[in-house]
Amino acid sequence: MPKILVTRDLGEHAMAILRQSGYDLIVNPDDAPPSREWVLNHLADPQVYAACIMHSQPSDKVDKELIASANHIDVKAANARGIKIGHTPGVLSDAVADIAAILVLSTLRRIGEGISLVKSGNWKQQPWAPFVNCGLSIGHPSLTIGFLGFGRISQATVQRLLAFTNKKQPPLILYTSSYRRDNQDEIDANLSKTFGVEVRREEKEILASQADIVIVLCDLNPSTKDMVNKSFFQKMKKSAILVNVARGPIVNSEDLHEALVSGQIFGAGLDVLTGEPDIPADHPLLKLNNCLVLPHLGSADYDTRNAMAERCVRNAIAAVNGEPLVAEVKV
Amino acid sequence: MPKILVTRDLGEHAMAILRQSGYDLIVNPDDAPPSREWVLNHLADPQVYAACIMHSQPSDKVDKELIASANHIDVKAANARGIKIGHTPGVLSDAVADIAAILVLSTLRRIGEGISLVKSGNWKQQPWAPFVNCGLSIGHPSLTIGFLGFGRISQATVQRLLAFTNKKQPPLILYTSSYRRDNQDEIDANLSKTFGVEVRREEKEILASQADIVIVLCDLNPSTKDMVNKSFFQKMKKSAILVNVARGPIVNSEDLHEALVSGQIFGAGLDVLTGEPDIPADHPLLKLNNCLVLPHLGSADYDTRNAMAERCVRNAIAAVNGEPLVAEVKV
Repeated sequence: MPKILVTRDLGEHAMAILRQSGYDLIVNPDDAPPSREWVLNHLADPQVYAACIMHSQPSDKVDKELIASANHIDVKAANARGIKIGHTPGVLSDAVADIAAILVLSTLRRIGEGISLVKSGNWKQQPWAPFVNCGLSIGHPSLTIGFLGFGRISQATVQRLLAFTNKKQPPLILYTSSYRRDNQDEIDANLSKTFGVEVRREEKEILASQADIVIVLCDLNPSTKDMVNKSFFQKMKKSAILVNVARGPIVNSEDLHEALVSGQIFGAGLDVLTGEPDIPADHPLLKLNNCLVLPHLGSADYDTRNAMAERCVRNAIAAVNGEPLVAEVKV
Repeated sequence: MPKILVTRDLGEHAMAILRQSGYDLIVNPDDAPPSREWVLNHLADPQVYAACIMHSQPSDKVDKELIASANHIDVKAANARGIKIGHTPGVLSDAVADIAAILVLSTLRRIGEGISLVKSGNWKQQPWAPFVNCGLSIGHPSLTIGFLGFGRISQATVQRLLAFTNKKQPPLILYTSSYRRDNQDEIDANLSKTFGVEVRREEKEILASQADIVIVLCDLNPSTKDMVNKSFFQKMKKSAILVNVARGPIVNSEDLHEALVSGQIFGAGLDVLTGEPDIPADHPLLKLNNCLVLPHLGSADYDTRNAMAERCVRNAIAAVNGEPLVAEVKV
């Protein structure tokens, strides 16, 4: 009887699907990542046909020695040995787009600062005035919203933000992509039709200078690391905000700090930050009123994590059944 | 030449409109509420035909002695003396609905707790796990969203939330109103058509027991004070959240505290709180991870406050011109 290795309990929803498969399960009994030794020992069992892994910290590495372990998968090494790698694309778009929208709205309306004011007990010391605690309105006429990267999550974010933006003078949506396609005008015309507002690919320098809201939603790779840096911030409007829901290192933290302190931009909302989760309480960005930082909550809702776990176990079961994976990573 | 009294600078936008009116202006030189004496003295000037007042704290009272002063207007006393009272309805619906949506999304996704975790420097101490920091998804199938009160702001909030909710299994919208109208079914059918989902008036007990999200957006009056109390919370689902963007005393703070501590409900997001702005740092609700409190940011964005100020001065100019007010309060 083939066995499936489960490096961590994946929640009742996914575990029930695994149990229904009828295959033997080897489940890490601890609610913590298993030791490397534990995984290696069980992978040595010739009856183990598949492993279910659900992790997200990029600190551990799945390397040639250990194909299935805590985290990042060495796809090349796995494929070289004829091992299939499944993943869970798409299921987290809505959850991340929700966080993107929360950060856009909260940064414009200075929510982080408001929460701090209340918690400090100083609400009373700040007398009402016509413009006290005022933030920016997402309903402002003819806003420009710029996306660095325009995949599924960006498009789900546009759909959400359009419920808040000005109806009579709707926003313009700009986005970057790695290169201009031959049929770019046609692509943009279709996107504009889909969303009912003008959507257009632009070079990042133009996007930086025109956008009131910049949302980072591209992959992290050598060409995007530090893409949002001093030179980018210098082009931005003083009334503009930056939201990063992709990967920390795409935004240069020191340059962001300078832009926020100097008033070069209005505020920032970050779900990710270089160095996470090792962010000390005295991190310079945490001291700023106009910077809101969340602990990488992107996909953190029960429905989404259950859906990710379900995809994970369905991939494993498909592999053991000798069927094509639901979603396979190829190189 | 008639004079217009301006108890506080209303910002460049509205002040420019006042100056263009050509009337003489008496403007409080301080960026603070004027003294009662200052207002009384200037109102005694027979050339003062109108006063522009923009305040929001309910601490001061405009009474029979002082018709135009810091705050709540004694409309009866004013009308008895032939004085017209203008106000600024409608202009703040979008800004308040934005805050309502921010609080709904943030409470579901445990944003307040996430912000605190990052600020404490303990992000690193909380290792990743499949369900760590997980919140509830607004995209969950067939949610029920309940509104206490269903005026302009509630309807603007529905429009926003529908951009986030499940498309295949859309939410049901329930709302309360002070009484059931003769043509209630027709009203609800029209609302359902407008929003593209089922919208229905319900008694508050049924709303309490069925809603996953309860949003308080009714007026404060003797019949709504303490309306959300122990008995209300006991009917609510353990997975439900409460959001109050109306007036603090509609929700009983002690009962809310007990409901949050005992796990009777999942969380709460408040833009208003009984006793505001005098909320000390050790207020019991501020100690709870599942309660997010904002300092009454409802209408606090520049566009909205400028629009309120503009309505205020246009009312004043219309009054001096002998024209009907843009919006008049009548008893």
